[in-house]
Amino acid sequence: MMVEILAVGTELLMGQISNTNAQYISARLPEVGVGVYYHSVVGDNPDRLKASFKLALERADVVITTGGLGPTKDDLTKETIASELGLEMALDKPSYDSLIEHFSKSNRPMTQNNVKQAYLPEGSTVLTNRNGTAPGCLVETNGKVVIMLPGPPSEMKPMFSEWVIPYFMKKNGYLLVSKFIRIFGIGESAMEEMIMDIIDNQTNPTIAPYAKEGEVTLRVTAMCKSNEEGLKLLEPTVNEIMKRLGSAVYSTDNEELHEVAARLLIEQNKTIAFAESCTGGLAAAKFASIPGVSACLDRGYVTYSNRAKMEELGVSEETLRTHGAVSSQTALEMAEGARKAAGTDIAVSVTGIAGPDGGTEDKPVGTVFIAISDKNGSEFKQIKLRGNREKIRNVSTLHIYDIIRRKIM
Amino acid sequence: MMVEILAVGTELLMGQISNTNAQYISARLPEVGVGVYYHSVVGDNPDRLKASFKLALERADVVITTGGLGPTKDDLTKETIASELGLEMALDKPSYDSLIEHFSKSNRPMTQNNVKQAYLPEGSTVLTNRNGTAPGCLVETNGKVVIMLPGPPSEMKPMFSEWVIPYFMKKNGYLLVSKFIRIFGIGESAMEEMIMDIIDNQTNPTIAPYAKEGEVTLRVTAMCKSNEEGLKLLEPTVNEIMKRLGSAVYSTDNEELHEVAARLLIEQNKTIAFAESCTGGLAAAKFASIPGVSACLDRGYVTYSNRAKMEELGVSEETLRTHGAVSSQTALEMAEGARKAAGTDIAVSVTGIAGPDGGTEDKPVGTVFIAISDKNGSEFKQIKLRGNREKIRNVSTLHIYDIIRRKIM
Repeated sequence: MMVEILAVGTELLMGQISNTNAQYISARLPEVGVGVYYHSVVGDNPDRLKASFKLALERADVVITTGGLGPTKDDLTKETIASELGLEMALDKPSYDSLIEHFSKSNRPMTQNNVKQAYLPEGSTVLTNRNGTAPGCLVETNGKVVIMLPGPPSEMKPMFSEWVIPYFMKKNGYLLVSKFIRIFGIGESAMEEMIMDIIDNQTNPTIAPYAKEGEVTLRVTAMCKSNEEGLKLLEPTVNEIMKRLGSAVYSTDNEELHEVAARLLIEQNKTIAFAESCTGGLAAAKFASIPGVSACLDRGYVTYSNRAKMEELGVSEETLRTHGAVSSQTALEMAEGARKAAGTDIAVSVTGIAGPDGGTEDKPVGTVFIAISDKNGSEFKQIKLRGNREKIRNVSTLHIYDIIRRKIM
Repeated sequence: MMVEILAVGTELLMGQISNTNAQYISARLPEVGVGVYYHSVVGDNPDRLKASFKLALERADVVITTGGLGPTKDDLTKETIASELGLEMALDKPSYDSLIEHFSKSNRPMTQNNVKQAYLPEGSTVLTNRNGTAPGCLVETNGKVVIMLPGPPSEMKPMFSEWVIPYFMKKNGYLLVSKFIRIFGIGESAMEEMIMDIIDNQTNPTIAPYAKEGEVTLRVTAMCKSNEEGLKLLEPTVNEIMKRLGSAVYSTDNEELHEVAARLLIEQNKTIAFAESCTGGLAAAKFASIPGVSACLDRGYVTYSNRAKMEELGVSEETLRTHGAVSSQTALEMAEGARKAAGTDIAVSVTGIAGPDGGTEDKPVGTVFIAISDKNGSEFKQIKLRGNREKIRNVSTLHIYDIIRRKIM
């Protein structure tokens, strides 16, 4: 089954945003055995949209569009596609009611142009939007499938998971069952060498490695008739890989590193405090994105200035003067001070040079110290990261979660 | 002149990377008065690449390809396009010499497959690659232009600046100049109704609205002969829009809301502290992503637990018991307490219910209180947000930056 992803939006052609929706959808469709053959992007122009859609429908079995479902005049996707397929637009009462409810709840008047969001091509399956006002829809027509999703990723992704993945699961006669082995602390090529023979001999399950910022994931996928059969097929391969990679494997359930750290803390009934300098609150914020994390997350300190490090965490002026704010000594005093001030079981700290400025020959941009403290003492880790400010900050938080995981594992 | 950007690479269709090259090229071409009408992505497959290129050449005047210029068997762009254009491949001696030099400098043997990088379609202009081994090329054919650029952004971007921008500057007589009016606090459809007549009467400049999570941007673009003339053409339209939308406009220079807030703080030499509950450090972390922000950002408190709110910020137990952690009273005490504890000019606080659990009839998920405190007193704002936990947290931080901006504007 060949899929084309057609993104609609002049903002893409103006380069204001990158087509991350196409990336997301392309990365997820292989889970259900579906391959993407084309991406295309067209602006908010009915003629070019029509021509692009026509072409997509000719060369692919499934066309997934993103964008152009909103209330404005520029939002033309549904209307243009319906006209090309010879379908009328019809008011979907449940979508209309939920629009009314949305505006009354948010105490804003619903302007007339909003109503058009509740009009969908006749006979289509409505894909409800829990995170915005524009519903998506799915049309089956002459053996082809057209799926229209909203443009904002915060709306598109949940809708994709809730509707599109299950749709293909049902449509295909077979299942693909995957395990995601998530690895931190070994690079992609080193990891590949450690399991090269397993990858080379793959048939069913298949193994696909992919690298994300600072970490590597192996997707191990079995083609099967039932979930049970799939899990049985996966087991020997997954176990062999885990044996070889050891403690670098932090999850086989597609949990993220911060989720693993939080789960372990909650399971062991331990509380934690964060003390952050260069990451500026990022480590605490990502932790706090986990629902229910209040069971372990007590508080965090963003001690950006030296004064804040001294006042909030009791880092000594002497340490800052002698060793600098970016040093193992400061990291250790930050973690110890945070644990004491917060009264938590564990505290972690991070201080580093995220750049672009501030690097020296001794401590170049990317120098980061992480420390962890519990009732048995404290320890630190120095890491050297490469990349821009954003990457250094992001990968630093991964190291923080990894040090928590290894501490309480 | 219509441009199509054709990216070649299976890694894009697998979702391993996002097509940021298309974004970069699309954002830069308007500088030289060239509009992008289509993006397309195709895998490393000669038949589909050939068909996609043929289509691009039919519907566009200029085809810019990225990727597929390297030494491996999968790198097929030049060969496939040359064959479609009826051109032979010819060895480019300077490119060959520079390959030899590259390998001898890096002390690596040059394997035979590398030589193919020095073969280019006959009659093409060679675009030298200062950051990699594969040169690009430019072919003018039957009134159309084909430009082939390498895939790695670190090679593509400098080549684009050095060769492609000057090429179009010379070719064109006119420029496109844009202003981006960024708006917070008015929804997309309400905003559109406020300026509907301006949008309807657009010719030059043209106006295009688009919505991002929680905010709206208007792009106003003039076609002109010079940058000065463009700015003069834009001025009356931009001024009229700004007059109508008032203080909801936070930037006409494409700055983001947190950047505007930080810039204003730094310009006025004011320091700030954040006190966050539901956002868990996100507001401080995004602020800290700005290089040089230490000039205004002193510290932040992530007071997730009630105990943290009391101990770090001096929120009274009475307030928490009577009004709850999510209340205007708690938000105000958090902001006041943070300003006092940190000794900063300004402190902002946020407390809310990000969900998915924790909502009540009185305070449903999405109820958020934001407060700001300075030497003249404190004030709060209650907002009602919709969406998932991530969206509620993200949009809350935008409201925090907006309250800072409005306070010191």
